[in-house]
Amino acid sequence: MKRPVHGGNLVWAANVSGCPASSILDFSASINPLGPPQSALDAIQGAFNSLNNYPDPNYTELRQALSKWHQLPPEWILPGNGAAELLTWAGRELAQQQVTYVMTPAFRDYWRALQGFGANIQAISFPWPNPNPVIPMDNFQDKKAGIIINNPHNPTGKLLTREALLPLLEKLALLVVDEAFMDFVPPSQQQSLIPLISTYPNLIIVRSLTKFYSLPGLRLGYVIAHPNRLQQWQTWRDPWSLNSLAVAAGIAAIEDKTFEQNTRQWLLSARQELFKGLLAIEGLKPIVSAVNFILVETVIPSSQLQQELLQKHRILIRDCLSFEELGDRYFRIAVRTCRENNQLLQGLSEIFTQNGIETG
Amino acid sequence: MKRPVHGGNLVWAANVSGCPASSILDFSASINPLGPPQSALDAIQGAFNSLNNYPDPNYTELRQALSKWHQLPPEWILPGNGAAELLTWAGRELAQQQVTYVMTPAFRDYWRALQGFGANIQAISFPWPNPNPVIPMDNFQDKKAGIIINNPHNPTGKLLTREALLPLLEKLALLVVDEAFMDFVPPSQQQSLIPLISTYPNLIIVRSLTKFYSLPGLRLGYVIAHPNRLQQWQTWRDPWSLNSLAVAAGIAAIEDKTFEQNTRQWLLSARQELFKGLLAIEGLKPIVSAVNFILVETVIPSSQLQQELLQKHRILIRDCLSFEELGDRYFRIAVRTCRENNQLLQGLSEIFTQNGIETG
Repeated sequence: MKRPVHGGNLVWAANVSGCPASSILDFSASINPLGPPQSALDAIQGAFNSLNNYPDPNYTELRQALSKWHQLPPEWILPGNGAAELLTWAGRELAQQQVTYVMTPAFRDYWRALQGFGANIQAISFPWPNPNPVIPMDNFQDKKAGIIINNPHNPTGKLLTREALLPLLEKLALLVVDEAFMDFVPPSQQQSLIPLISTYPNLIIVRSLTKFYSLPGLRLGYVIAHPNRLQQWQTWRDPWSLNSLAVAAGIAAIEDKTFEQNTRQWLLSARQELFKGLLAIEGLKPIVSAVNFILVETVIPSSQLQQELLQKHRILIRDCLSFEELGDRYFRIAVRTCRENNQLLQGLSEIFTQNGIETG
Repeated sequence: MKRPVHGGNLVWAANVSGCPASSILDFSASINPLGPPQSALDAIQGAFNSLNNYPDPNYTELRQALSKWHQLPPEWILPGNGAAELLTWAGRELAQQQVTYVMTPAFRDYWRALQGFGANIQAISFPWPNPNPVIPMDNFQDKKAGIIINNPHNPTGKLLTREALLPLLEKLALLVVDEAFMDFVPPSQQQSLIPLISTYPNLIIVRSLTKFYSLPGLRLGYVIAHPNRLQQWQTWRDPWSLNSLAVAAGIAAIEDKTFEQNTRQWLLSARQELFKGLLAIEGLKPIVSAVNFILVETVIPSSQLQQELLQKHRILIRDCLSFEELGDRYFRIAVRTCRENNQLLQGLSEIFTQNGIETG
């Protein structure tokens, strides 16, 4: 069975570990462990009786809910079958530029989306070891150039400031910013480009609801961009891209402020504790993160760690082999509940001790 | 609010009729009124606890279930987010031909899928008033030509024989056959091209599970084609196109033989009765159909009929304005339960009487 290039592949993990997928503790997909919110599950249940109808092709209600949340007119918002579907169409837009820059390391699916439409891709390094990454503007010499960038950045967990991105909007023909993890940043510290959307027709913002609300199985994302652009995307894809249960869940989830508060509370303390625990293991070096996952440098190859954790502890971590620049020297883990994080820390400790590396 | 170009738009209908969408009796979307099967609903419920995981990107279990059903290796089958998503990628394939023929009248979304990739489209008439339509082969002079065709044909309800389609496979570079309604034909009379798939690498078969199993809100279809082609499609689209609840529902539904039998029994008698009822209304002329919908010729313009049925009876029928060749002279209705069909017949009778047309 081929090693997966994305996190969260439990079928593969079950195969490697020799135990059922449901018994695996998944740190490889960066999903909020508190969810899905009960409100969303209730909404899904309540929408069962609409399954025999086609979804509203205008997704009027969901757009209205998102419109209220972001204080943007609904025609600037287009829901999609997960952020991943929307990345496909963003890839098609970017492929029309003379060159498309990808900040590496980058989410593997950016390449798929760009190559799928024959984009001329140029990789440039995301200067993430810098505690405050600034994007080197001298890379961008072409006139008709686009860029796709993740903010907060996956897999490093770094947050770029709005000020760092502004020059890109001024200089490039197209900026696609994937804000899939922005909701995990405390509201006062968020650096979303949504407030700039009406000023920059060359801006596309991709958002996900499945990570914060733990619904990756349901597929639910949206894009924010100029209405003309979104109208064109609607001619590229079919009219019923989102299923009705995702619509119902999405509307309920974004209105669930209690779930949001609980998540913010959990994340702050759980991440801090997990970070400390990782620091205490000699041979591991966690990178400070703004979001719900942590990139960790490791002296034991991450593919070996991954295999031992799976086979001995039924724990799945994300190796970084699909991020060329990181390779076997890094792995990425989601922040989970304190109890689960401790299980991971214990498993890691054991493996490092058995490999003759003393933990501090 | 713009008149919809597809059936099943209840938001629009609610707006026109001034009553909630849930109180409208929908004859415009051709969905099995017996479903969804309880087995599928139970499976959806059972899959709730997997919503916080990503779907298996290989869709192994669903492919295996479809593989068993069609007696084809799983790699010849690719599930999709409804047949509509797969039509997008079929459109991309067809657009690579020098010319793509569309048999008209045709499902509106074929145009969208083809135009979305800049296809050179040539419309040719489907000779449907002929009781046994044969495709005029002298239309196909180009070497690198593709065609998209619906079998059974929507909106006429006509079934083409396998023999009628074979010459297309021999002569054209690509044949896309949309068999979305094939399941509604009794098994012994079906004319699916699935048995030919391994012989013709230029064949693409699109299938839907949402019509027979009444799950259009969930999005669930699949395509059958050469594995090389399907591998390419997977680089065009994102890895998690189907939601996990659709996967669970699909597996349960195709194993539910009782539901299938009940559907076959209902359809045979309900369609016959509805057909007779339509024939009895002076001014209406129903077309003999092989499937679960009936195209009807009308002396009262269908847009007028549609509006009166909505406002007076809360019944939605499918006008044919989006099928240019049919326009206001035809409407399409789904076969529903006998009680519901009678409601429609009564509504139609009243309107025809009020408009001074005597019913026989």
